[in-house]
Amino acid sequence: MPYRIDELAEKLGATFEGDGSITIAGAAEPQAAGADDLALAMSPTYAAHLAEGQAKAAVVWPGADWQALGLKAAVFAPRGRLAMAGLTALLDPGPGMEAGIHPSAIIDPTAEVADGVAIGPFSIIGARVRVAAGVQIGAQVSVGPDSVLGADTTVHDGVRIGRRVRIGARVIIQPNAVLGADGLSFVTASPAYVEVSRQTLGLGEVTVPEDATWHRIHSLGGVEIADDVEIGACTTIDSGTIRATRIGRGTKLDNLIHIAHNVVVGEDCLFAAQVGIAGSSVVGDRVVAGGKVGISDNITIGNDVVLGGASVILSSVPTGRVMLGYPATKMDVQLESYKALRRLPRVLKKLAGGKAAD
Amino acid sequence: MPYRIDELAEKLGATFEGDGSITIAGAAEPQAAGADDLALAMSPTYAAHLAEGQAKAAVVWPGADWQALGLKAAVFAPRGRLAMAGLTALLDPGPGMEAGIHPSAIIDPTAEVADGVAIGPFSIIGARVRVAAGVQIGAQVSVGPDSVLGADTTVHDGVRIGRRVRIGARVIIQPNAVLGADGLSFVTASPAYVEVSRQTLGLGEVTVPEDATWHRIHSLGGVEIADDVEIGACTTIDSGTIRATRIGRGTKLDNLIHIAHNVVVGEDCLFAAQVGIAGSSVVGDRVVAGGKVGISDNITIGNDVVLGGASVILSSVPTGRVMLGYPATKMDVQLESYKALRRLPRVLKKLAGGKAAD
Amino acid sequence: MPYRIDELAEKLGATFEGDGSITIAGAAEPQAAGADDLALAMSPTYAAHLAEGQAKAAVVWPGADWQALGLKAAVFAPRGRLAMAGLTALLDPGPGMEAGIHPSAIIDPTAEVADGVAIGPFSIIGARVRVAAGVQIGAQVSVGPDSVLGADTTVHDGVRIGRRVRIGARVIIQPNAVLGADGLSFVTASPAYVEVSRQTLGLGEVTVPEDATWHRIHSLGGVEIADDVEIGACTTIDSGTIRATRIGRGTKLDNLIHIAHNVVVGEDCLFAAQVGIAGSSVVGDRVVAGGKVGISDNITIGNDVVLGGASVILSSVPTGRVMLGYPATKMDVQLESYKALRRLPRVLKKLAGGKAAD
Repeated sequence: MPYRIDELAEKLGATFEGDGSITIAGAAEPQAAGADDLALAMSPTYAAHLAEGQAKAAVVWPGADWQALGLKAAVFAPRGRLAMAGLTALLDPGPGMEAGIHPSAIIDPTAEVADGVAIGPFSIIGARVRVAAGVQIGAQVSVGPDSVLGADTTVHDGVRIGRRVRIGARVIIQPNAVLGADGLSFVTASPAYVEVSRQTLGLGEVTVPEDATWHRIHSLGGVEIADDVEIGACTTIDSGTIRATRIGRGTKLDNLIHIAHNVVVGEDCLFAAQVGIAGSSVVGDRVVAGGKVGISDNITIGNDVVLGGASVILSSVPTGRVMLGYPATKMDVQLESYKALRRLPRVLKKLAGGKAAD
Repeated sequence: MPYRIDELAEKLGATFEGDGSITIAGAAEPQAAGADDLALAMSPTYAAHLAEGQAKAAVVWPGADWQALGLKAAVFAPRGRLAMAGLTALLDPGPGMEAGIHPSAIIDPTAEVADGVAIGPFSIIGARVRVAAGVQIGAQVSVGPDSVLGADTTVHDGVRIGRRVRIGARVIIQPNAVLGADGLSFVTASPAYVEVSRQTLGLGEVTVPEDATWHRIHSLGGVEIADDVEIGACTTIDSGTIRATRIGRGTKLDNLIHIAHNVVVGEDCLFAAQVGIAGSSVVGDRVVAGGKVGISDNITIGNDVVLGGASVILSSVPTGRVMLGYPATKMDVQLESYKALRRLPRVLKKLAGGKAAD
Repeated sequence: MPYRIDELAEKLGATFEGDGSITIAGAAEPQAAGADDLALAMSPTYAAHLAEGQAKAAVVWPGADWQALGLKAAVFAPRGRLAMAGLTALLDPGPGMEAGIHPSAIIDPTAEVADGVAIGPFSIIGARVRVAAGVQIGAQVSVGPDSVLGADTTVHDGVRIGRRVRIGARVIIQPNAVLGADGLSFVTASPAYVEVSRQTLGLGEVTVPEDATWHRIHSLGGVEIADDVEIGACTTIDSGTIRATRIGRGTKLDNLIHIAHNVVVGEDCLFAAQVGIAGSSVVGDRVVAGGKVGISDNITIGNDVVLGGASVILSSVPTGRVMLGYPATKMDVQLESYKALRRLPRVLKKLAGGKAAD
């Protein structure tokens, strides 16, 4: 899919200068760019490497002196990563799934599959499943009874979709993700020590119940994934108990994330890898969580909250707050505590010395 | 599976009041309940929403004035979540795996498969595997040579069971879990810097071994899973080196958990998602770990220990202790330290001010 | 595969004493050893259990009085775990994949597969894929277009290899790992609150962009895995944006690890389970990371760095440093801070008491 620079600029909604007839076939970092690559030089730091490569054209920052950089043409990107979004979308050949249902796929006779849907080898579509137009399902996927896949949704290889999982339109699910597994929901007949110790903070006596058997609370509620959600590789979203576990429109989840039963996540959230949200917690809209963030069960995170990488959230967080740490506090408070903690050993030494001097 | 209220109460071992002939077909939160749903109103907070739904019958707390709540019948649950366990078990239609061996499944001729076992499409049963009566294996599962599945065990889609994995009865394994992969066990020919630095706490010189190659210690011991264990989606339990890695009877593991080679976990433990246990550690009975807990290698956790969410356990923990933090300490000590740390910046400022005033 | 003791010692490059004609068929811990097992008694602690088992021969430490331990033969291991590497390699029957391409596997006609390669049931090899000699691919594996598998590489069941993933020689990939999924790379049209709050540390006003849509930056760069790498179960390595995400020669990754887009990991590194490395970070050679370590995006970790279990690395780390904590600091500094923090509540109480006394 080669593009002329003038054509590319138009598609990106960007301006260009220089020879618009130059044709590019791909994109590359400046030092690695071949003669038919568009170099990505959105800042002077990157542009410094242009001479090491062979690019004739580059994406540069507004105001860049592209001729001095040795270029024959330049596309201007006021917001570099946004230009990257447009550019990589143009260059992406797509997942390359073949149209039609592979003869090895097993489709339950009660399933309703729209015309033209792609279903890959060895995939399995269960009873009463509905698959809308434009859906692409890879290889070795299984979709359980009564689940729904909305229009233009893409399901990559090895994904497991359980019972009663309702997925919206234009959703993308990366390989080996699991939606609709049973939640970890168990109860002992009489109070377990973990329940008792919450009250006593572990200062009471250890109590061992006569019968320590964990009784299973079954997961009947399924999962609901709204439109335009993306779900990462090996991410797991468990079925709700009675009502569905829910992910809101436009939310993007990275790899190896755990969303427990009954959790409700809002719209346009962005969660990095290995985030975990415990049972029944509610997360607002536009919440951004760094990698490895943990959110405790049965709490509420407001809209527009930002959770720094590896933060552990043990209680509810109001709208707009920026949090960090374990346990997480407001970021500025946390940073102040860190600084104080680093000084502490010296201060204590001094205090002890002062005392000794008394 | 509709139930009459009187019949349901009997099955749950609970009492009821009102019209026992009312029939319910499902369960729902009070506000979402239809006319044939049993509302879950185990506390006044939930019961307050009954008027928003259409339930005629509900599960309520002992002593609740069910008539004042507008109900025609009430089931009394002294322990709400225990009632949920019984109720959801009754309402669960089950994983819906078809009986019999799917014609696309590949069963090694030396495998012994009991009559009536369910084995789903594209699943593979290896050499000398034994599959007991009542086992249900989903789609696209693989079971390696010399493994054993006990009676009534359920293995969901995409699960990988390696060589020499012995699984007990009534075990449930969620999708895409991996049992019996090779452990991370490597050694360099001469001591690596990581070994040296343990002694020096990183204060010695950096030593680079002439040959930094990591030599693999192979995993020959397999895995043993006792009866009534549950294993979450994408959870990994590695093979032991010489003897098996072991999970004790009745223990429940959530999603994305890592159990390293040679670990021994006791009975009736409950681990939330993303817990990780490093090589050769031993965990007692009835240990409860919150999400993201990490347990270091070669340590011992006693019986009835409670590990708060995201705790990192760097040394052995005696019986019955309630732990929190990184590094984890007794919970009350940790909470005291947190409080002191929050006060510290002000205290240091005051101390500095006092000094300045000198 | 039974071995005579003299033959075994020779293969391990070790010395032995006693009856070299004794034959062993396996290895075991001293207390569990049968009469034809080689007992692993590399330290007096282990050797103390020899009497509980039936071993006639054992691996022992240099200088051990093997006759007093009741043995008939002893192999001497100056470095016990290195002996384990050699010994377990000898005893490992291997993954047991059958040679040849299973008739159910689907090989794209444009793929080049060397003679004698093993490809298991229901596996799929995509367009233009190259599979070198000696490769073993398990069951239910999928390999995407334009990917490459080097000589003698082993790919276990359920692994997902995406587009343009170039894998070297002798690589081992454990079950259900995912290579080459799309990275979590998204951008809003105008700055999101998370960008603004980095500057203000969350102390400014909450800004909600008019359009909160996350625009996808597509992943076109693929993945490069060098020779002799091992990748754990359910580990995910995302595709780079423009250039490849890279793992260096000899590096070993445990289970449930996340390597984000554009990350570069050096040679001979060792990462324990649940490590996560965020986008575009660069890690040097021989870096060792304990379980659950998190590394922030766009930072650099030098050669020979050691990262203690659960450390969270928020900024770049120079060569040879030993780090611990959240946020991580030099290990000795962290340990001093911990100690000071534990003393702090008492110190504050005393200070407050002193004041009250004023």
